Amino acid sequence: MTTIKDSVHDHIAVEGVAAALLDTAAVQRLRRISQLGTVSLAYPSANHTRFEHSLGVYHLACEALEHLGVHGRQAERVKAAALLHDVGHSPFSHNVEALLYRHTGKYHDDVEELLASNPVGDVLRSHDLDPGAVAGLIAGDGQYGQLVSGELDVDRMDYLVRDAHHTGVPYGTIDHERLVRELTFLDGELVLAEGNVQTAESLLVARALMNPTVYSHPVARIGKSMLRRATERLIEDGVATPETIRRMDDYDLIAALRSAESTESYARALDERDLFKRAVWAEIDDVPDSLLDTDHERVRELEAEIADRAGVAPEHVVIDVPSKPSMTESTSRVVVNGEIRRLGQQSPLVDALRAAQRSQWRFGVYAPEAVTDGVGGAAASVLGLEADGGLVTEVRRGHYATLDEFEPDK
Amino acid sequence: MTTIKDSVHDHIAVEGVAAALLDTAAVQRLRRISQLGTVSLAYPSANHTRFEHSLGVYHLACEALEHLGVHGRQAERVKAAALLHDVGHSPFSHNVEALLYRHTGKYHDDVEELLASNPVGDVLRSHDLDPGAVAGLIAGDGQYGQLVSGELDVDRMDYLVRDAHHTGVPYGTIDHERLVRELTFLDGELVLAEGNVQTAESLLVARALMNPTVYSHPVARIGKSMLRRATERLIEDGVATPETIRRMDDYDLIAALRSAESTESYARALDERDLFKRAVWAEIDDVPDSLLDTDHERVRELEAEIADRAGVAPEHVVIDVPSKPSMTESTSRVVVNGEIRRLGQQSPLVDALRAAQRSQWRFGVYAPEAVTDGVGGAAASVLGLEADGGLVTEVRRGHYATLDEFEPDK
Amino acid sequence: MTTIKDSVHDHIAVEGVAAALLDTAAVQRLRRISQLGTVSLAYPSANHTRFEHSLGVYHLACEALEHLGVHGRQAERVKAAALLHDVGHSPFSHNVEALLYRHTGKYHDDVEELLASNPVGDVLRSHDLDPGAVAGLIAGDGQYGQLVSGELDVDRMDYLVRDAHHTGVPYGTIDHERLVRELTFLDGELVLAEGNVQTAESLLVARALMNPTVYSHPVARIGKSMLRRATERLIEDGVATPETIRRMDDYDLIAALRSAESTESYARALDERDLFKRAVWAEIDDVPDSLLDTDHERVRELEAEIADRAGVAPEHVVIDVPSKPSMTESTSRVVVNGEIRRLGQQSPLVDALRAAQRSQWRFGVYAPEAVTDGVGGAAASVLGLEADGGLVTEVRRGHYATLDEFEPDK
Amino acid sequence: MTTIKDSVHDHIAVEGVAAALLDTAAVQRLRRISQLGTVSLAYPSANHTRFEHSLGVYHLACEALEHLGVHGRQAERVKAAALLHDVGHSPFSHNVEALLYRHTGKYHDDVEELLASNPVGDVLRSHDLDPGAVAGLIAGDGQYGQLVSGELDVDRMDYLVRDAHHTGVPYGTIDHERLVRELTFLDGELVLAEGNVQTAESLLVARALMNPTVYSHPVARIGKSMLRRATERLIEDGVATPETIRRMDDYDLIAALRSAESTESYARALDERDLFKRAVWAEIDDVPDSLLDTDHERVRELEAEIADRAGVAPEHVVIDVPSKPSMTESTSRVVVNGEIRRLGQQSPLVDALRAAQRSQWRFGVYAPEAVTDGVGGAAASVLGLEADGGLVTEVRRGHYATLDEFEPDK
Repeated sequence: MTTIKDSVHDHIAVEGVAAALLDTAAVQRLRRISQLGTVSLAYPSANHTRFEHSLGVYHLACEALEHLGVHGRQAERVKAAALLHDVGHSPFSHNVEALLYRHTGKYHDDVEELLASNPVGDVLRSHDLDPGAVAGLIAGDGQYGQLVSGELDVDRMDYLVRDAHHTGVPYGTIDHERLVRELTFLDGELVLAEGNVQTAESLLVARALMNPTVYSHPVARIGKSMLRRATERLIEDGVATPETIRRMDDYDLIAALRSAESTESYARALDERDLFKRAVWAEIDDVPDSLLDTDHERVRELEAEIADRAGVAPEHVVIDVPSKPSMTESTSRVVVNGEIRRLGQQSPLVDALRAAQRSQWRFGVYAPEAVTDGVGGAAASVLGLEADGGLVTEVRRGHYATLDEFEPDK
Repeated sequence: MTTIKDSVHDHIAVEGVAAALLDTAAVQRLRRISQLGTVSLAYPSANHTRFEHSLGVYHLACEALEHLGVHGRQAERVKAAALLHDVGHSPFSHNVEALLYRHTGKYHDDVEELLASNPVGDVLRSHDLDPGAVAGLIAGDGQYGQLVSGELDVDRMDYLVRDAHHTGVPYGTIDHERLVRELTFLDGELVLAEGNVQTAESLLVARALMNPTVYSHPVARIGKSMLRRATERLIEDGVATPETIRRMDDYDLIAALRSAESTESYARALDERDLFKRAVWAEIDDVPDSLLDTDHERVRELEAEIADRAGVAPEHVVIDVPSKPSMTESTSRVVVNGEIRRLGQQSPLVDALRAAQRSQWRFGVYAPEAVTDGVGGAAASVLGLEADGGLVTEVRRGHYATLDEFEPDK
Repeated sequence: MTTIKDSVHDHIAVEGVAAALLDTAAVQRLRRISQLGTVSLAYPSANHTRFEHSLGVYHLACEALEHLGVHGRQAERVKAAALLHDVGHSPFSHNVEALLYRHTGKYHDDVEELLASNPVGDVLRSHDLDPGAVAGLIAGDGQYGQLVSGELDVDRMDYLVRDAHHTGVPYGTIDHERLVRELTFLDGELVLAEGNVQTAESLLVARALMNPTVYSHPVARIGKSMLRRATERLIEDGVATPETIRRMDDYDLIAALRSAESTESYARALDERDLFKRAVWAEIDDVPDSLLDTDHERVRELEAEIADRAGVAPEHVVIDVPSKPSMTESTSRVVVNGEIRRLGQQSPLVDALRAAQRSQWRFGVYAPEAVTDGVGGAAASVLGLEADGGLVTEVRRGHYATLDEFEPDK
Repeated sequence: MTTIKDSVHDHIAVEGVAAALLDTAAVQRLRRISQLGTVSLAYPSANHTRFEHSLGVYHLACEALEHLGVHGRQAERVKAAALLHDVGHSPFSHNVEALLYRHTGKYHDDVEELLASNPVGDVLRSHDLDPGAVAGLIAGDGQYGQLVSGELDVDRMDYLVRDAHHTGVPYGTIDHERLVRELTFLDGELVLAEGNVQTAESLLVARALMNPTVYSHPVARIGKSMLRRATERLIEDGVATPETIRRMDDYDLIAALRSAESTESYARALDERDLFKRAVWAEIDDVPDSLLDTDHERVRELEAEIADRAGVAPEHVVIDVPSKPSMTESTSRVVVNGEIRRLGQQSPLVDALRAAQRSQWRFGVYAPEAVTDGVGGAAASVLGLEADGGLVTEVRRGHYATLDEFEPDK
C-alpha cells in the first residue's frame, strides 16, 4: 500500500489495481495536464493537475464503495475507472477538447482504445479486470458507471472542492463527506438517501456559483480561445495531427506552439498574458439563434468577414460561442418519501439556477486591445447583433456578475 | 492598541473607542452569551459566543470603513456600534428573545437606555460620541446604520462565516473579504458596486443553506422551545422578572432554571439532552392560516387543550410556530449598469430561495418521546390539521431537507 | 449509528457502546465543562468543551484501532475508555483540579467509582464490558491503556489540533492522521513505526510551542489562580464540599461563586475580566528551591505575610507556583532500526525543548493593579527573591517569549 | 489597483509600481517556474509557482511596510524588490541553480543586469526607482534589504506557509500575520520586537520540520539529481548554453530534454516517475571529509570510476552531495530586554535543531533500481565509505525521520 499526501483529502491510501496503475505512463502523464487550463490566467494559484484530481476521485470512490458495501472485483473495477477516468484528456484539459473532437470524433472520456493498450491493459488484465468494462464505467455505463460519471459522481465532488481550494474562491465548498455517505442504490439507480434534497441542492449551487466565477471567467475564456485558435493553426499547417496533439501533455503543446512560426505570436501572448480583449460580449437574447447553432466552418468564415470589414489580420478576430446553458445536476436523483425523484422536479432552485445561468451566458468576440472598437463594430454588423458600439449588450443590460479579479478586462 | 487572536479573522486590532469599550461589563458579558443557543445540542462544536462575534463584526466594520474612505468621528461611531451591536442580547441570544419582547416590548437591538447608562455611556461620551446616535446605528438608522444593521451589514458577513466554522457545516462560506471591499455608497444607500450581482447572491445562498441545516435544525428548535417554556415558567412563578432575565447571562439563567422547582425538570432535560420529540411536524400548507397568526395566549390554551385530550401533563406539550418565511437579503442593493437595483428584482434566485424556504418551513408540536403518538393525534384534532397520525404531513410530502446529524429525532 | 458533525474531524460516526454512552448524564455533562478554562480570557474563541474533545478522542481511537487491526470486545473497551476518559473532570477542567486533589485525593482520571455507578456502569455491563477494566485503560494501564493515556495517546493528538483550531494559534497543527496511521505495537509497547522520529518530534514541538503561547499564557494563569482561590474559599466557608464541587459543571461553580458573599467579588472580577496583575514574575533560577517544594499550607501563610507587609487585604495576594517543568512526550517510543528507543535518547530536540521550557517557566505573585508595586516589593523580601522592584527577574533577564495577545498585562 | 485572488492570502491588492511590473514578461515568466521543482514527484499537489509566491511576498512586504510606517518612494522600492525577487530563477527554481552557477557565476538573486534591461528597467525608472537599488535590495543590501532577503525576510514567511498549504504537510504553519506585525527596526537592524523569542523560534522550527519532510525528501532529491545531470548533458553537448538555460522556463527545459538524444531517456524517466533509487545513503559522520569539499569535476570522475567498477553505463551513477548543514534563521535578531540578540545566543533550540539537521543530512549515490546493489558496493570502495552493502549507514544507524510518502524508495 502506498500513502500519498494530498492538499485536499490529506492522506490517500492507494492499493490493489490502483497502486499498479499509478506508475503507468498514462497516469503519470496526468501530472502534466493542468486541471483548469487557462483559468490560471485569472487565478494564479490554480496550477493543480489532473493527476491529483484523479487521486482524489479514486479516494472518494473508495469511500463511497465502502459506504455502499461494495467489495471484491466490482469494487476494484470502479476504483480503476476512478483513477483512470481522465487519462483521455488532451493538453490543458477541456481547452482544446472540442477542436480535437471535430477532427478525431473523440471526447476525453472515450478511452476504450487507450485502456486496452499496454501497459494499462496489461495491468488491468493481470488484476482480472476487462479494459472494456472499465472504459464502460468511465463512459457512465451501467449501475456503477453512475458513480464515476453521472449527476452524482465522485468526479464532481472532488473537482468542486479542489478547484475552490486552489483558486481561493469559497463557493465550491460542498459537504463532500456527507455526499459520499448518503449515496445509495435504489432500483439500480444511484441516488441520495432520504432527507438529502438540500444536500443535492448544495452540489447544484456550488456548481452554479463556480461557473461564472471560475470556469467561465472572461479571462480564462479569452485565453482558451487563443490557445484553441493557435492549436487549430498547428493542425492546419500540418505541424501536428489531431491524434498526436490528443496524446501530448501541456509541455509538448506549449513547445509546439512556440516553435511553429504561425503560432509563435499566440504562444508569446499567452506566456506574457498579453491577451485579446472583449470586442463583443453579448447576452443570449441578443444573439441570433442561427449563430448559436452555426458550425465551426461558418464561424471561421464569419471571423474572416469581420476581420476584413474591420481591416485587421484574420488571426486577430476570435469568435467564442459557448455551448448552450445546461445543468447536469438537475437530474440528480434523491429519495423523497421513499420514491426516487429528479432534483429538477423537487427543487425550485433548479429553475432559478437555470435562469441565472442563462442570464450569465455570454457570446464573445475577442481582438487585440488596440482594435477592439473597430472589431466590435464590424462584428455587430456582420453578425446582426443589436449594437450600440463595442461591448454591445454588456452596457445595455449588464447584469454580468462575475468576479473581475486580476487585471480586469475591458 | 490591543491585538486579539480570533479563530476566524486571525488578528483583530482594537483601538480607539473600541479598546475602551472592550473592558466594560456590558461587552465582557457577551463572553457568556452563546451565539447559537441550543444549536449546540445538534452541533456540539457550536460553543462560540456573542463576544467573539462582536469582535468579528467590529473587525469587518473597520475594513469596510477603510475601503469606503470613512475616517474620524463618523468612523469611530460606526466602530462603537459594531462592537456594541449585540449588548442587548438576552441569555442564549435569540432563544428567549420573543418571550421577553412580549413582556418588555424590547428586542435585542433596542439599546438606547443601555448605551446611555454607565460605564458604556461614559466611555462613549469621553470619546465625543453620543450614546443615542450609536444606539441609532445599531437600530439601522441612517446611511451608516445600514452597515451595522441592514441587508448588507457586516453582522451577517461575520456570523455566516463564524457559524459555519464552528458547526463544521461548509455552507456559510461566503467571500467576506470581497463583500467588504465591494461595498459602496450611492445616493446615500449602501450598495454593492457594479459587477457584484453574484456576490450578493452568494450571501443569499449561504443564508438559505444555513437556515434549515443549522439555524432551524429540529433538535435546536426543540431545545429552544423547552428553554423558552421553562423561562416563561420562571416569569409566571415570579422567580424572576422579564427585565431581570433580559440582563442575565447564560450562567444566570441556567442556575435559575436549575434552582426553581417548577423548571428543574426542564433544566435536567436540557442538560442531559433528554429532549422532547416531534409529535407533529407540518408543512405550511397544512396548517390553518389562523394558527400562523395566533397570539401567544391562544397558543398556551391550545397546548392545554391538546394535553388534556391526550391525557398528559400540560407542561408536556409545546407548540412551536416559527415566524413566517422572510428573506431580508432579497432587498440587498446592487449596482447594475449604474442603477441601484434590489437583488429581488435582479436575481431569479430570490424567488426560488423564497420557495425553498417556504417548503422547508415546519410547524411543530413536541412532547416526551413516550407520548408523541397520543399528543400527535390530539394535536391534529384540536388544531384542525390534516392528520394521518403522528408526524402529520412529514410522511405524506416529506421533502424535508435538513441534515439529521446526531441522534436523529423521530 | 449516529453521525456527529465536528469542526475538527468533520463527520464522527458513533456506534456500539459509544452510542449508548453518549446519552448518559456523565457524558452530556462534558458539554458544560470548558476545555481550556480561563484560557478563554486570553483567547476569546477558545470556548470549546470536553464533550467535543471526547468525541474527537473517540474518533481517533477508532481510526488507530482500525490501523492496528484491533476489533471486537477489546476495541469496544478502548472506544468506551476514549469517550469516557474525561468524565472525571471537575469544572473548568484542570483549573481547580489540584485544589480538589488536596481534599479528595483524586485526579480527573481516577474514575473507577464513577464508571461503576449507573447509568454508565449499566451501559458498560450491558455491552459485556467491565467498568473497572475501562477505568484501568483511562488510568493508562496495560498495553491498550497507552493508546488512551500515554506519551503517544490519541488524547494528546486531538487536543493539540483542537486547541490550535479554537485559539487561532497555528502551532498545534500536527499531522494527526499520520500519527494515527503509524502507531503500532512492538513487544507489547505502543510505538511509532520505523521512519517516524520526526513525526514524534513534531508532536513534542507542537506541545512545546503551545505551552507558553496558550496553556501557560499569563492571563490564563492569573485567571486560573483567582478561580482557584475563590473555589478554595467556597470550601473553607463550607458553602460546598470538595466532592460536590468535583461533580459540578462550569455553570454550577460560577453560580456558587456569584452567590457566596466571600467569593462574589472574585466572580465579578472574572466576569468583567478585571484581573489581578503580575506583582512578581520570576525565573526558575531566581526562586529559592524551598519555594518550589513548599506545600500549600505554607503558600497560604506566605500570601498572608506578604499581604500583611504590603498592607493589603489577604485575598489580594495570590502566589502561583507552577509545577516543575516536565516533558511527557520525551519518553515516546519510536522504532529506530528495528529497536524501540525513547525519543529522549534519539532526538537532540528533547533536551533543547526541556531547556526552553525551563527558561519559560515563571513563578508569579498576583495582586490588584493598584497595589502590584507594594505587593511586589513585599513578596521579594518575604520570599527571598533577588528583587529590583516589581517584576523582579522579568526586567533583568526577560527572555519571556509568550504572545501577549489581548490587553497585555503589566 | 488590481486585486488578485490567492489561495494563501485570499485577496492581494496590487498597485503602483508593482501593478506596472506585473505585466512584464520577466514577471509573467514566473508562472511557468515551479516553486518546488521535483518535490512534486513526492507531493503531487505541490504544483505552485514562483509567480504566486512572488505575489505573496509582495503582499507580506506591503503589510510589513505598513506596520513599520514606511511610505513613499522607499516603500515602492521595497515592494518592487519583493515582486521581482525571484525573476532571476532558472527553470525548476533551485534544481539546476548550482549547475548554472558553476558556468555563469550567478545565483538567482543576482539580478542587476536583468532589472536594468527593458521593459523592467523602463517601468522602474518611470516610477523614479533605480534598477540597481532594487537589485541591491534583492541581494539583501542595506537596512531594507533585510526585509527582502535576510533571516527575517517576508520571502521565508510566504514560502513556509505556501509550501505547507500545497504539499498538505502541516509543519510550515507559522503565524505569519504575527511575524509581520512584530518586525521593527532597531539601530538600523530588522528585528522582532520584545516578547518574540518564541515567535522567532517558531519560524526556525517550521523550517527545521519542512526541510527533511519536504525540501530534502529523498524522492525530490533523486529527481533533482537526474534533472541536473540531464541539464548538464545539454550543456556538454552544446545543445544549449548555460546563459540560455538560465532564462528558460520549465516548459523550455523539458522540451529541450525531450528533444536531445542524449537526455531523452532522463526526460522519459522524470515524466514517468521511473526514478533512480538510492544505492548509498550515508550519514555525515560516515562520509570522508574530503568528499564534502570535493569539487564538481572530481565528483564526475568519481561517478565514472564507480560506474566502471560496477560495470554500468556512466550515466547510471549519480552522486548527490548536499551542501553542509547550515541554519540561516539562527542569526535572526530579537529584542530581549531592550537589547538586540541573535536567536542562536538566546534559544537552546538553535543548537538542537542544528544537531537534528546534521543527523538528518544524507549523502546519496543513485542508480537504476536493477543495479543499486552493485553500484552501492562499488561506491563504498571507491569513496572509502564504511560499507556493509548497499545503503551503507542507513541500516546501521538509521534515524532517518523523513516522511516516506508515495512510493517509498528503497
